Amino acid sequence: MTAAEVLFLVGAAVFAVTGVQAAARQNMDVMSFVIIGVVTAIGGGTLRDLMLDQPLFWLADPAYLSAAAGAALATFFFERRFRATLRAFLYLDAIATALYTVLAIEKTLRLGFNSGVAVVMGVITGIGGGIIRDLMTGQPTILMRRELYMTPILLGGVLYVALRPTNWIELPYLLALAMIVIAAVRLGAIRFGWAFPDWLTYRPLH
Amino acid sequence: MTAAEVLFLVGAAVFAVTGVQAAARQNMDVMSFVIIGVVTAIGGGTLRDLMLDQPLFWLADPAYLSAAAGAALATFFFERRFRATLRAFLYLDAIATALYTVLAIEKTLRLGFNSGVAVVMGVITGIGGGIIRDLMTGQPTILMRRELYMTPILLGGVLYVALRPTNWIELPYLLALAMIVIAAVRLGAIRFGWAFPDWLTYRPLH
Amino acid sequence: MTAAEVLFLVGAAVFAVTGVQAAARQNMDVMSFVIIGVVTAIGGGTLRDLMLDQPLFWLADPAYLSAAAGAALATFFFERRFRATLRAFLYLDAIATALYTVLAIEKTLRLGFNSGVAVVMGVITGIGGGIIRDLMTGQPTILMRRELYMTPILLGGVLYVALRPTNWIELPYLLALAMIVIAAVRLGAIRFGWAFPDWLTYRPLH
Repeated sequence: MTAAEVLFLVGAAVFAVTGVQAAARQNMDVMSFVIIGVVTAIGGGTLRDLMLDQPLFWLADPAYLSAAAGAALATFFFERRFRATLRAFLYLDAIATALYTVLAIEKTLRLGFNSGVAVVMGVITGIGGGIIRDLMTGQPTILMRRELYMTPILLGGVLYVALRPTNWIELPYLLALAMIVIAAVRLGAIRFGWAFPDWLTYRPLH
Repeated sequence: MTAAEVLFLVGAAVFAVTGVQAAARQNMDVMSFVIIGVVTAIGGGTLRDLMLDQPLFWLADPAYLSAAAGAALATFFFERRFRATLRAFLYLDAIATALYTVLAIEKTLRLGFNSGVAVVMGVITGIGGGIIRDLMTGQPTILMRRELYMTPILLGGVLYVALRPTNWIELPYLLALAMIVIAAVRLGAIRFGWAFPDWLTYRPLH
Repeated sequence: MTAAEVLFLVGAAVFAVTGVQAAARQNMDVMSFVIIGVVTAIGGGTLRDLMLDQPLFWLADPAYLSAAAGAALATFFFERRFRATLRAFLYLDAIATALYTVLAIEKTLRLGFNSGVAVVMGVITGIGGGIIRDLMTGQPTILMRRELYMTPILLGGVLYVALRPTNWIELPYLLALAMIVIAAVRLGAIRFGWAFPDWLTYRPLH
């Protein structure tokens, strides 16, 4: 197993932990808990692979299922004891999201699609799992919240596809730069409550 | 770009405009607004292409994404000023739906599927985007509303697949006829509040 | 048509009947009723086939659509008269679920996937249609209910993939055994209200 594969599996585990934490506002049995964790972890990449007509990444390597299910199970049993620690997972989640989205963009470009499609696939990979989880658990989706979630991905993704053809920065460094932008904007949004200004926020008339 | 392609892009823009209007009942930022517009515009055709195992139409031509995103953005900024005009988009939406569904039926038939499957694909193309939008924004879906939305598509679609093998009417005229039926029934439903009669409406006992 | 095909079509009809019964808590027209029945009947298998990149089972044989639509239509017209009989369909539903899930597991194994993936595909086939129906009709999904629905499938599925490579039991008998386990646990859960014990149930702090 390469270091990259280990990182991806750790990312899936992180998504599962934050996924069940976000969903755990109602009574539910351990089975639902595990399924919510797995769906959050693999949902976005699944949508992406379906749309690109690629084999689903977790069919090629079912370790993703085990990593997500194991992490959800551990959260079920130890959540009460490690509540403070678990809050730190929100920060890990931002980093794992950066990893998954930038690599999704690179994967899409290598399949021959254009920059716009690649950024869209990055966003779908990054937010798809959370949206499916919210739908299945009856929570308002990311679209309905003021929190910045899609915007960091979009910023980092546009930066990546804009700089990549220029060759100013070597690919590994550009990958790292885009990930840092995504993680930093997302972490800033969590930490400082960043949101869109009023003139970029729609308010229905009543 | 052919005239047909232009019409389809205009249709995608129309779907985005009516999509965000239908969803805009809560506060949301401009990013969610654009995503809702795009999802409404391309959701139905995406489901159809996934089910038929065809390349997604907007991967082959990302101009659909731009048209929908641009139309949603314009609606965000100019909605207040042109509210009366925007209501007219409901009528354009009926026409664009007719265009998309009849062409989806024809596309499905040409892939070798039978008439029933083709009509189902027409319905999925016509209502899929709206259903995904309603789910993502927490609105009751089309299925839960009395408004006629699926029925016009079904009527026009059945007419189309019934008459097509007879060759009584040349294909371009038959396409136009089916579109007119779909748009006319849908517009009548909007204008006159047509709905199913009571004996075709289920009421749960309490 | 083979006996197996007839059984599968009967299963689809059963899923449609229980599907519309579960959804029928609000006013809705006959068209929505039929669509809900069809979506419940074919939704799970559709998700499975999309994920495995197989042709959708109802595209290959549109009789599934007719069986589900016909059963939903019959339920619409005769539900009031046969309410007591219809309750018996919950039991038939458990049996049809057992049939569909075990065959989905076998199908997935024959495509060369490992045991874990096969069990996941069994679960998706068994619960996918119900989840899509609940989302479209605004009901809380299976994940949010205490009722055992996924667990019987998981138990029978794990038993099946564990015993299959040992060849202790011939395949037709093993298929039957796994189906009996799934149907029996599900029926027991319906009849006796089985649910997870407290220590396997999550309760959020308020």
